[in-house]
Amino acid sequence: MPTPSESLVAMRDAAPLVQCITNFVAMNFAANALLAAGAAPAMVHDPEESGEFAAVARAVTVNIGTLSPRWLAGMSEAVAVAQKAGTPWVLDPVACFATTLRREGTGKLLQMQPTIVRGNASEIMAIAGEDSSGQGVDAGDPVAAAEAGARKVAEASGSVVAVTGEVDYVTDGTRAVRIAGGSALMPRVTATGCSLTTVCGAYAAVVEPFDATVAALVHFAAAGELAADKAEGPGSFIPAFLDALAAVGPDTLNEDRVSVA
Amino acid sequence: MPTPSESLVAMRDAAPLVQCITNFVAMNFAANALLAAGAAPAMVHDPEESGEFAAVARAVTVNIGTLSPRWLAGMSEAVAVAQKAGTPWVLDPVACFATTLRREGTGKLLQMQPTIVRGNASEIMAIAGEDSSGQGVDAGDPVAAAEAGARKVAEASGSVVAVTGEVDYVTDGTRAVRIAGGSALMPRVTATGCSLTTVCGAYAAVVEPFDATVAALVHFAAAGELAADKAEGPGSFIPAFLDALAAVGPDTLNEDRVSVA
Amino acid sequence: MPTPSESLVAMRDAAPLVQCITNFVAMNFAANALLAAGAAPAMVHDPEESGEFAAVARAVTVNIGTLSPRWLAGMSEAVAVAQKAGTPWVLDPVACFATTLRREGTGKLLQMQPTIVRGNASEIMAIAGEDSSGQGVDAGDPVAAAEAGARKVAEASGSVVAVTGEVDYVTDGTRAVRIAGGSALMPRVTATGCSLTTVCGAYAAVVEPFDATVAALVHFAAAGELAADKAEGPGSFIPAFLDALAAVGPDTLNEDRVSVA
Repeated sequence: MPTPSESLVAMRDAAPLVQCITNFVAMNFAANALLAAGAAPAMVHDPEESGEFAAVARAVTVNIGTLSPRWLAGMSEAVAVAQKAGTPWVLDPVACFATTLRREGTGKLLQMQPTIVRGNASEIMAIAGEDSSGQGVDAGDPVAAAEAGARKVAEASGSVVAVTGEVDYVTDGTRAVRIAGGSALMPRVTATGCSLTTVCGAYAAVVEPFDATVAALVHFAAAGELAADKAEGPGSFIPAFLDALAAVGPDTLNEDRVSVA
Repeated sequence: MPTPSESLVAMRDAAPLVQCITNFVAMNFAANALLAAGAAPAMVHDPEESGEFAAVARAVTVNIGTLSPRWLAGMSEAVAVAQKAGTPWVLDPVACFATTLRREGTGKLLQMQPTIVRGNASEIMAIAGEDSSGQGVDAGDPVAAAEAGARKVAEASGSVVAVTGEVDYVTDGTRAVRIAGGSALMPRVTATGCSLTTVCGAYAAVVEPFDATVAALVHFAAAGELAADKAEGPGSFIPAFLDALAAVGPDTLNEDRVSVA
Repeated sequence: MPTPSESLVAMRDAAPLVQCITNFVAMNFAANALLAAGAAPAMVHDPEESGEFAAVARAVTVNIGTLSPRWLAGMSEAVAVAQKAGTPWVLDPVACFATTLRREGTGKLLQMQPTIVRGNASEIMAIAGEDSSGQGVDAGDPVAAAEAGARKVAEASGSVVAVTGEVDYVTDGTRAVRIAGGSALMPRVTATGCSLTTVCGAYAAVVEPFDATVAALVHFAAAGELAADKAEGPGSFIPAFLDALAAVGPDTLNEDRVSVA
């Protein structure tokens, strides 16, 4: 079982091609986050080509942040190919509780057994069938309130489930850990969570899903702290965070941040 | 009638959920601007869900910068729900003079009585039925040339109309004020106007439309000045401006910037 | 034949309206790059209006980075109008080797005789009918490997062809030059190539295609060096690069960077 440091080295050595079907808000930031982290992003979404491209991608990540029926079709095509090829895929169920399109889309994608599901507390609680207080894209609930739901989803789906927030929680239904760190500026910058989802995909291309998720979350937590030291607000945090994603090395991603839950 | 400072406090206290149907260029920057200002953005556009989401949003903002028939349908769905619920909605008629799709789309949206219309001089003149010298997305006319047109549109539609530029002009057809400030770098950064439109929505969620528009414009003018002090060009202005949107407080948003027109 | 410095002065004097049909990842950054460089961007893509808008644009740029059938239709409409009007248009065949949609789309667009084609080595080799090692959006081949292919494409299509990378190569099939400079951080920031394509369009609005392409590449190379001096990583490179695109003047764009190939 690789440490986050070892996963980082493996990921950068492979520089895996990660296909992202993400939302319009996150697309540029997520591509830059993947490049900075050490992976190779490709945003390919249309159903005419998403499945064909998924055949060469090392990981597929799907995010429903700005959903439409055609994009949902593109996601399904890519995921079907990934699933058949044994390629890991990651689901980010943005505001999955908010509309019928999102609820049904998330339900359909969950049936395709994501390798990893990453969301905020309100999203994971909604998937677990619990009442959440989320309205928009921000979490309305603390991570702790979603831990039981996360275990339930992991057991039912076989996915690794990550709930991210002030202290992150990761479980595969059997094991569970918490990851501390990051910065209070992270929820004040749009698409940090969406970008983290794509970086989970980069790690899942090279190590097992649970280790991949932990490594991605540790990578983001460490980079968030570094960036917060340089930032004067949410705006200057953005370039500083991308710098930090690139700057952190194996020495920075130590296991101290990870505790068994 | 609240001062801009009082409106700022009310807006940040509420952190209102603002649904934005904006263009692809502005989406990330507008979301970050709303977060920095103190609101909660949600970009939800497709006709399959935009109306459903509008029912929980505290304000809806619509921007035709990268228009298509399907997005226009999504805008109409959201606006219809907002209108019925008495939720404020803001129209940004980007380059509304440039093509038939934009002219007709803007005409259709104007019939749905926007709470606030924010545009540059060329756009407001075009809506008022006057000849403008706009071609692309930039204003080809000075704000002063659009003031009469703005009053005409406000009287006809019942909307508060804001013409933004070097000195902004806001009118509800009866009252009118001018707002000075900002920075010459603002028109050199794409989507600053589009972002301002979304922030008008955030304020309109908590105070009356005229006061909301004035507060949003004062907020942007103050932040623009702060950011210009730190920026070395249009690129470094971007993070500095987001920092400044977050940094300005009630003390900064004084009424000195506002003069009766 | 204008020097890059002379082309820069001419471009900034004209501040040409450049219609960009580009990908979702690049849209914000490309608009900011055009503004910083001195041009006026307009992102207008839908087939309902792209042709109508192309009639007033001084250049049209087309980029297949996040392709779909409807966007391809929008590109074709705009290009048909540009071609008929003698307006220059630029093609950026992002990952054109990767899927059937891209291969066929690129083939269709190439038949409409782009004024300029700008791509990385793998993309230009694919267009020339050669085997490339590209998989995603990044080049898998060095520029040198694509020079013969670039000449072949230029001869067959009448286009100026630019292969960009560590040392750029530009040819019209008869003449050929290489352009050195830039920064190793440029390929680590998404959409730098896509933005360069749009800036080629800005220059092509005012000078001949070969000179325009050379000037745009020299502009980017000079700005890349300036920005690298200020950047601490790929994140801080982004605002620094936009600052630098605006800061470089005729003195900076000397011909020393250009050598006959």
